[in-house]
Amino acid sequence: MIEKPSILVTNDDGIHAKGLRELIEVMRLFGDVTVIAPEVSMSGMSGAVTVDDPLRSVKLSEEPGITVYKCNGTPVDCVKLGFNHLLEKTPDYVVSGINHGANTSISILYSGTMGAAMEGSLHGVPSIGFSLMDFHPDADFGKAKIYAARIFQAVMDNSLPRDTCLNVNIPQGVPKGIKLCRQARGKWSEEFDKRTDPHQRPYFWLSGTFHNSEENARDTDLYALEKSYVSVVPVKVDMTCYETLSSLKTWNF
Amino acid sequence: MIEKPSILVTNDDGIHAKGLRELIEVMRLFGDVTVIAPEVSMSGMSGAVTVDDPLRSVKLSEEPGITVYKCNGTPVDCVKLGFNHLLEKTPDYVVSGINHGANTSISILYSGTMGAAMEGSLHGVPSIGFSLMDFHPDADFGKAKIYAARIFQAVMDNSLPRDTCLNVNIPQGVPKGIKLCRQARGKWSEEFDKRTDPHQRPYFWLSGTFHNSEENARDTDLYALEKSYVSVVPVKVDMTCYETLSSLKTWNF
Repeated sequence: MIEKPSILVTNDDGIHAKGLRELIEVMRLFGDVTVIAPEVSMSGMSGAVTVDDPLRSVKLSEEPGITVYKCNGTPVDCVKLGFNHLLEKTPDYVVSGINHGANTSISILYSGTMGAAMEGSLHGVPSIGFSLMDFHPDADFGKAKIYAARIFQAVMDNSLPRDTCLNVNIPQGVPKGIKLCRQARGKWSEEFDKRTDPHQRPYFWLSGTFHNSEENARDTDLYALEKSYVSVVPVKVDMTCYETLSSLKTWNF
Repeated sequence: MIEKPSILVTNDDGIHAKGLRELIEVMRLFGDVTVIAPEVSMSGMSGAVTVDDPLRSVKLSEEPGITVYKCNGTPVDCVKLGFNHLLEKTPDYVVSGINHGANTSISILYSGTMGAAMEGSLHGVPSIGFSLMDFHPDADFGKAKIYAARIFQAVMDNSLPRDTCLNVNIPQGVPKGIKLCRQARGKWSEEFDKRTDPHQRPYFWLSGTFHNSEENARDTDLYALEKSYVSVVPVKVDMTCYETLSSLKTWNF
């Protein structure tokens, strides 16, 4: 009997998110699943780790082929706890999502979904973050699941280079196919909604508008999604800018 | 009269950290300083943003040349709030630190210090994160300040490309000079200290040991610091792995 692959599943919307349940259903087609997900929403937590507080995890259920834990930490904490303590052996894959909302362009820097996928790749395991361009808690993941399965199968067939993971974003509706892309340049503006509390003190909600800084480029994730394609961006954890490294050699420090 | 540059200063160790005070002293040599720093420690917060809670800031002091705010958010929130609300005009530079402890190799993915510097670069402003290889709350920043000044002057003289910032790590003791480096590959192992609380429930502290995965490489930040040099790594926010993008074209999705 061929041993089934073991798959660690996490997300940043938390253990109760529909997108997590949908991703679990897909991953059960491929192997034995261990879910380790944040007990509350950890949207926007990026690669954050919990340094100043203790971490706890609770096993919620265990059936053949699927074990579920919740954790009080961030998505990255969930992955670290899985590799170091909760899993009996190193998993074969880490998948994160399916996020409610896109993680395109520079949003990768803020994304807990992608923080978890990068963490998986740092542990030497092929890892993928999946996101659907729909923030609704009851979003329709039907087509997203089919593409998640296709892309996961391709990763099983080909593996991924060390320290590299995939950032997959799926459009609403019926995707036209898959496009391999680079991360678009973009920026946020008017990022806060300023309000006044009943005690006349100001407070801010993070909000704002996103702008694609290269609308004419056809090789970006934003372009693919605009044209109703699933975007697949390979992401590496080496953030060195090698071009700048060369030019810095001319500086007089 | 030449207008002084305006400099936004933040950190992730929080408003009361010695390293922040030391960086403020350096930056006052160069221009008008606005400090917007987290009110509590935000170590390990990476590029996290506060999505589910309201943000608040309080002006703590205002004197000619220096204004100080604290904020209940992350380092990235501090930078965003500065650009969007607290600063009258876009600052000329963003600097973050001086962190108590190194932010080398893959630690850049978890570093709130570097999260803030990347955020500055996303706002189109030359930005630098400074870290000292000493976690002690009363660490000696004497030599670190001199190198911070040298490197800041070089950035003023040369600027930095769009969406690129510098990750500067400073060794303890007397540095031998500055080395331009790439981010080393590395990994953490045994990442948790497992304990039992008085109610017999387990909990975990994030901890662990860091390993340099390429000890023989001489062009990395870890090598430079081991040899008592200040490491300067240019960091870009485009995380696309272009090599992998090419090889993905051969995949059958």
